[in-house]
Amino acid sequence: MRFSRLYGIGVGPGDPELLTLKAYKALMEVDMIVAPRSREDKRSWALLTIEGVIKERESEPRVVEPVFPMTKDQAKLDFYWEKARKEVLEKGVGCETMAFVTLGDPSLYSTFYRFLEVFKDSVDEVEVIPGVTSFSACSSIAKVPIAEGNEIVSIVPDARTKNAPRVIGSSDSLIFLKPKNTVEIKNMLGNKKAVLGVKVGFKDQEMLTGKLSEIKEKTRYLATLIVKKEPQDYESESDFC
Amino acid sequence: MRFSRLYGIGVGPGDPELLTLKAYKALMEVDMIVAPRSREDKRSWALLTIEGVIKERESEPRVVEPVFPMTKDQAKLDFYWEKARKEVLEKGVGCETMAFVTLGDPSLYSTFYRFLEVFKDSVDEVEVIPGVTSFSACSSIAKVPIAEGNEIVSIVPDARTKNAPRVIGSSDSLIFLKPKNTVEIKNMLGNKKAVLGVKVGFKDQEMLTGKLSEIKEKTRYLATLIVKKEPQDYESESDFC
Repeated sequence: MRFSRLYGIGVGPGDPELLTLKAYKALMEVDMIVAPRSREDKRSWALLTIEGVIKERESEPRVVEPVFPMTKDQAKLDFYWEKARKEVLEKGVGCETMAFVTLGDPSLYSTFYRFLEVFKDSVDEVEVIPGVTSFSACSSIAKVPIAEGNEIVSIVPDARTKNAPRVIGSSDSLIFLKPKNTVEIKNMLGNKKAVLGVKVGFKDQEMLTGKLSEIKEKTRYLATLIVKKEPQDYESESDFC
Repeated sequence: MRFSRLYGIGVGPGDPELLTLKAYKALMEVDMIVAPRSREDKRSWALLTIEGVIKERESEPRVVEPVFPMTKDQAKLDFYWEKARKEVLEKGVGCETMAFVTLGDPSLYSTFYRFLEVFKDSVDEVEVIPGVTSFSACSSIAKVPIAEGNEIVSIVPDARTKNAPRVIGSSDSLIFLKPKNTVEIKNMLGNKKAVLGVKVGFKDQEMLTGKLSEIKEKTRYLATLIVKKEPQDYESESDFC
């Protein structure tokens, strides 16, 4: 079982209109679509984003929705990856091309490169198509730039890691993806201006802006938090470091 | 002179196929396009990116290419911004809608929000359309992810600013846009893996990968440098801080 081409496609933040022309064209003609989801009882967010494109097609593509659970349990991960591998190879019989779709962009925190590692010996060519990130979408909707001039921007997935406080203390703007550690983040940046987007790009998106300490906690899956410092914020910089 | 709508459009990194569907549709129907360029004798990179879209249109839009020089000289900036303001208002007579196009994404280091500040009283509605960044494009072409898991990514426009060394020392991946300070960056990160993209997305793009110290210096305008650390790189972390 061999595929002539594997696409790694960033479908953007959830709004189907934020697909790139390149992604749209690839999705209109690919033989099989692989869409990751985090749990057996959930749909794939990336697949939801491209549902309309799939409906536009004359011939339906095969669709596989393997589960990639968010866990550090290696035995569990190995089990699900092996299951996904078999599923893709079984469903892919007769397919020339396949696309792995990922929310946002494949370069940032996507499962795509792990998928590529698993399938690299089963494909002839690989093409990665970049996508719009959730933080760009969040900034666009709030109409607040993330950075200008010489400002440093840092993306911090987990505020409890060893280096996070130093990066948080020395950056001008911060992006927290799926912020789980809002208590820690609020302790460090509570008085700063913030924009919180939940399910940005999807129909039920929510945008909250204001001082970070005043923003009601949202711990749901698709959340992006942008925090901007002002020049005067650097007086207390040493608090963080 | 009043516009009903101003679009701030991120046209992506330079490849016209990386326009979003939303940006494409807006550009197909907008009355006037404002495309910034850095010098009188240069074309606008954003306009080059959308040339094909403009040619597809039945009616040509009005196009203004004001100069926004890259300078800190306030008198010079004021002169050019006033010139741009007049040009847009003069050429815009009879136009309902205008789009300001920006390479990459409006949220990161774009002139768009300064433009919005100048024109906010001359427009009824504002819509910002996010775009694919140069670093996402760079990562896609190199097929190297920027970050996975809990890795911290920082975007550093100028490695000589006060906080830059601390951020560089504590981040797992670094993105340098238009890297001017390659000597400083090489001193700090020379032995790390790097990807340098020049004019990524344009026809004459160049991609260089390898150890940062071995990559020949490129100081041209549209360069994006991604540097990735490996776990063992943290042994010498204290060198930076």
